[in-house]
Amino acid sequence: MKIVRDVESMKGVLRPFAGRRVGLVPTMGALHSGHLSLVHEMKKHADVVVLSIFVNPLQFSPGEDYEKYPRCEEEDCKKCADAGVDVVYIPSVEGMYPDGFSTGVDVGPMARELCGASRHNFINGIMVVLIKLVMQTNAHCMILGEKDYQMLCLTRKLFRDLNIGVDVLQGDTVRSPEGLALSSRHKYLNGAEIAKAGFLYKFLLEVGKNLSDAPDDQQEIITRGKLRLEQEGFKVDYLEVRDNNTLERIQTFSRPARVFLAVNLGCCRLIDNILLA
Amino acid sequence: MKIVRDVESMKGVLRPFAGRRVGLVPTMGALHSGHLSLVHEMKKHADVVVLSIFVNPLQFSPGEDYEKYPRCEEEDCKKCADAGVDVVYIPSVEGMYPDGFSTGVDVGPMARELCGASRHNFINGIMVVLIKLVMQTNAHCMILGEKDYQMLCLTRKLFRDLNIGVDVLQGDTVRSPEGLALSSRHKYLNGAEIAKAGFLYKFLLEVGKNLSDAPDDQQEIITRGKLRLEQEGFKVDYLEVRDNNTLERIQTFSRPARVFLAVNLGCCRLIDNILLA
Repeated sequence: MKIVRDVESMKGVLRPFAGRRVGLVPTMGALHSGHLSLVHEMKKHADVVVLSIFVNPLQFSPGEDYEKYPRCEEEDCKKCADAGVDVVYIPSVEGMYPDGFSTGVDVGPMARELCGASRHNFINGIMVVLIKLVMQTNAHCMILGEKDYQMLCLTRKLFRDLNIGVDVLQGDTVRSPEGLALSSRHKYLNGAEIAKAGFLYKFLLEVGKNLSDAPDDQQEIITRGKLRLEQEGFKVDYLEVRDNNTLERIQTFSRPARVFLAVNLGCCRLIDNILLA
Repeated sequence: MKIVRDVESMKGVLRPFAGRRVGLVPTMGALHSGHLSLVHEMKKHADVVVLSIFVNPLQFSPGEDYEKYPRCEEEDCKKCADAGVDVVYIPSVEGMYPDGFSTGVDVGPMARELCGASRHNFINGIMVVLIKLVMQTNAHCMILGEKDYQMLCLTRKLFRDLNIGVDVLQGDTVRSPEGLALSSRHKYLNGAEIAKAGFLYKFLLEVGKNLSDAPDDQQEIITRGKLRLEQEGFKVDYLEVRDNNTLERIQTFSRPARVFLAVNLGCCRLIDNILLA
């Protein structure tokens, strides 16, 4: 397994693989089983698996956890080697955004909804880095986890809008035995909080069931749901039902829908979503 | 020579050229000798020359000449065949910007200076279409004329910032015998106006000479120059001295500089620039 830290070296490392299918697994490091399941999935679709580790300053707002975001490179590289990653790409911030860098991308209104509503520039900051990463690695495909479903849809949209011919695969959400969708940010939680966070998935399934039973009562179910979350000690950012493809708000369930939630628990932001088939 | 009108057909047409170097000459059609000189230059750098004709609605502001911009496809294709173009790509507006298209690009502050100061969204609208065109044609390099020097610099910046590995070549400005930098918009001018427009290049050379002789008098030379243009019947948009690489305003001539002008004559906007070596 190669470890690469700049674009020029990446070109050299990929040269022997010319003509082979390169698959990118973009991460911010602090790898957990969710990331590793993306690697395993990607190995089915690509000849060469590149996993990138980059804590992207563009996607953090002032006051967010950019500085304290967990960084554990050595441990991450070991996990990558065990999982069969071919190249770990760990670019520096200066390499990614050298002096004079000034280009922004805006995928449109949906970048300012759901996670984009409270996290200014979050989504468009991710869009920029994803274009850069697929270009730097000459990726034919990349993979994002279903937990980041909004990002997954918007990345597909971005690539479609700009004719960037990179397939975006969807990896399953990996959960703890209690149902908690794994996240590197769980390192911010104590044991009691982790136990409490396990409630979210059960809650989503319950909301999903209620919506399936009474699709016309969406507004009431959501209002009651938010109250319930607050009672359980979560600070609710959003709880919403959206179209599974366009992410638009829906009133009628004529097409597949998805329930999305984002809450704060302690100093940790948690997101999750489930498909209503 | 192939004529292609959609992305899918483009893929098919390019398939036999896999591994060969594709060069893109992006145009809005109404081809003149300036465009054809870009084709000739590109033939030195690429195995396959694709010339695109697309009057890009994103780069026109409301009230500009999008509707009346000259369109003469048949004549253009004949010129392309004579010049040795391999593929003419004429996408439709609906093909380029299908329903739901919403992605924008912003190359930063320099997109709002020079031509970007008076033409809202002009430059970023071009940036979007250039990304799309190089992606759709799998171009290895593209070429822009020196007349559109701001665009040339900003496209290079865009590709550098997003790690889009496409070389942007610079083609010489082609001028009429009177010195007028050729433009498809000259079709808007009558004979008297064309004769008058020939003044601009002589004027630029004179300004350049004055600046070389007295670099400390930049402000006065520019102020006098603008007055002179107005006296000659031009409506001045800008007359500016900028760094040749960064396009930043300069006070001292320690590095190569360039004089840029944009004026209106009748209903026609004219731009030109010269290098101060």
